[in-house]
Amino acid sequence: MTDRYNVAIMGATGAVGQIFLELLAERDFPMDELRLLASSRSVGKQLVCGERTLAVQELTHDAFDGIDIVLSSAGGSISKQFVPSAIDAGAVVVDNTSAFRMDADVPLVVPEVNPQDLDGHRGVIANPNCSTIIMVVPLWPLHVRHHVRRVVVSTYQAISGAGAKAMEELETQTRDVLSGKAANPRELPYQIAFNLFSHNTKIGPDGYCEEETKMIRETRKMFHDDGILVTPTCIRVPILRAHSESVNIEFEEPVTADEVRSILAEAPGVTIVDDREGNHFPMPLEASGVDDVLVGRIRQDLSRPDGTGVDMFLSGDQLRKGAALNAMQIAEALIERGQLRVKK
Amino acid sequence: MTDRYNVAIMGATGAVGQIFLELLAERDFPMDELRLLASSRSVGKQLVCGERTLAVQELTHDAFDGIDIVLSSAGGSISKQFVPSAIDAGAVVVDNTSAFRMDADVPLVVPEVNPQDLDGHRGVIANPNCSTIIMVVPLWPLHVRHHVRRVVVSTYQAISGAGAKAMEELETQTRDVLSGKAANPRELPYQIAFNLFSHNTKIGPDGYCEEETKMIRETRKMFHDDGILVTPTCIRVPILRAHSESVNIEFEEPVTADEVRSILAEAPGVTIVDDREGNHFPMPLEASGVDDVLVGRIRQDLSRPDGTGVDMFLSGDQLRKGAALNAMQIAEALIERGQLRVKK
Repeated sequence: MTDRYNVAIMGATGAVGQIFLELLAERDFPMDELRLLASSRSVGKQLVCGERTLAVQELTHDAFDGIDIVLSSAGGSISKQFVPSAIDAGAVVVDNTSAFRMDADVPLVVPEVNPQDLDGHRGVIANPNCSTIIMVVPLWPLHVRHHVRRVVVSTYQAISGAGAKAMEELETQTRDVLSGKAANPRELPYQIAFNLFSHNTKIGPDGYCEEETKMIRETRKMFHDDGILVTPTCIRVPILRAHSESVNIEFEEPVTADEVRSILAEAPGVTIVDDREGNHFPMPLEASGVDDVLVGRIRQDLSRPDGTGVDMFLSGDQLRKGAALNAMQIAEALIERGQLRVKK
Repeated sequence: MTDRYNVAIMGATGAVGQIFLELLAERDFPMDELRLLASSRSVGKQLVCGERTLAVQELTHDAFDGIDIVLSSAGGSISKQFVPSAIDAGAVVVDNTSAFRMDADVPLVVPEVNPQDLDGHRGVIANPNCSTIIMVVPLWPLHVRHHVRRVVVSTYQAISGAGAKAMEELETQTRDVLSGKAANPRELPYQIAFNLFSHNTKIGPDGYCEEETKMIRETRKMFHDDGILVTPTCIRVPILRAHSESVNIEFEEPVTADEVRSILAEAPGVTIVDDREGNHFPMPLEASGVDDVLVGRIRQDLSRPDGTGVDMFLSGDQLRKGAALNAMQIAEALIERGQLRVKK
């Protein structure tokens, strides 16, 4: 008989919260109680998970009684405030915010990359940034085989990364622009309908925005390799749900595009979409609702005549693998490894 | 008294043709007769250029009588067919297609880069590919000062590059998707509404598409430097009119972001939009209808610890500098240099 767990979702009404509900049902997670937590504004709102319909309860410090696992996606400051209470109540938290990601004693995990980092967790496991996750799923198996020295990555990020309201805003703005009205940005700093802009996180003194810095630091932490060099440029595009990335990789040694293709063909979490004849490659529309990261345009980088470069293009669902799915996979790995209960 | 010239537009009814009409009026081009040429389907259609309203005439081999300069943007096969007739009639052709770009005896010119290549032209001057033009305007002054060794570029290309019908299709598809209908791609191979895809030109045996190969070869030809290394990834995004590009540059020597910024501040055809505090950087919406290429996100590439790398992000109007404006500037340079009449 399988154990069944009491699950709480922090931020149940958000864009990622919705996908948690879908995935818990879809993946037949061994769940007993499900508790939906959100701010007082959402209390009483009915949400569906498989065959259950449940009312949202208020997120308070006492809300975690009897809970085994918390799937958290309510924003960094909410996590900082409530995650300690959840741990005190004996739950393990998989946190989808940036609150604890770079803490030395908090594992930052993509199960295809570093599941062993779950060992000895202290009650909270951090889920990486969406753009990082989608990049490292194909990058890690290549790094293991041929040591990646440097990555130049440009993102094409869906608006789901800015939340459910921003997704609605893309649609509203687009309707307005098509009917000749001015776009009215609220959640987003600029018009996103038929436009794109640099990721609107704070720019540091080095000129990189926070989203880009996350991609650099989180990759190093998960790969346990402070020498890996990454220069990202993060751009928001008028796409609803899946992120894409143009990735140029420099290896320590010559690697052919064919070798890359055969490594990725065996890699967990990767589907190759690379039909040169039919001009069919990864697209966010085809990545939406899909678990795997789609990888294509795999080719030898002609600008590295020594054969050490490969280019590729990825699309991955920002809400699934970029957020809720990866967190669910962490929860499943915790169960499989017998690490769900906090060791006090 | 300024000389005035008889001008013909080949492909007057297209997306670029429309901008030729705007620019001829706006820039007060020294024009006597204006002849609008297009296929028989468009004959009689009335188009406006400043205070003139003119009917489209049929593009035939005899249509160039008395014409001094032809601005051509009707597609490569049309150019191959009709440009020789225009030259025979004594006109100089600025050709916006790829028909003659790589011919050894045809100058390929961006006036900010290589106006001297107009010398000794033989009746046709090629206008480069839009993505190439937008990249080389800021790249060239940097190359002159610090020798660029390698460029990794990812494009965010507007749909205007696929023509006026494709621009309409982006709007139609978007309306359909917003009202719950399926998108119906006609001019484009895939849904472009709320989607993006790899540039749909033929993929060569090396895995690069034709658009990418153009960026590599045309840059080398204009820079007179077969050693410059470029690896482009070309992506179409749901934007109407201006292209954007994420550009990672490796120099032969250490160059600071500040040096790059001050070189570009003086560079013709460039406007710096790089407000880190206000998170305001180049956006296609703000580049649309603007002559200059907008350049921002200028920062030291932290993945090149030897200081030889710089990242930047560009937006430039695909129809203006990427096509019609550059062709007009070539025509103006020909006049200024006394090279408008074919030397037979």
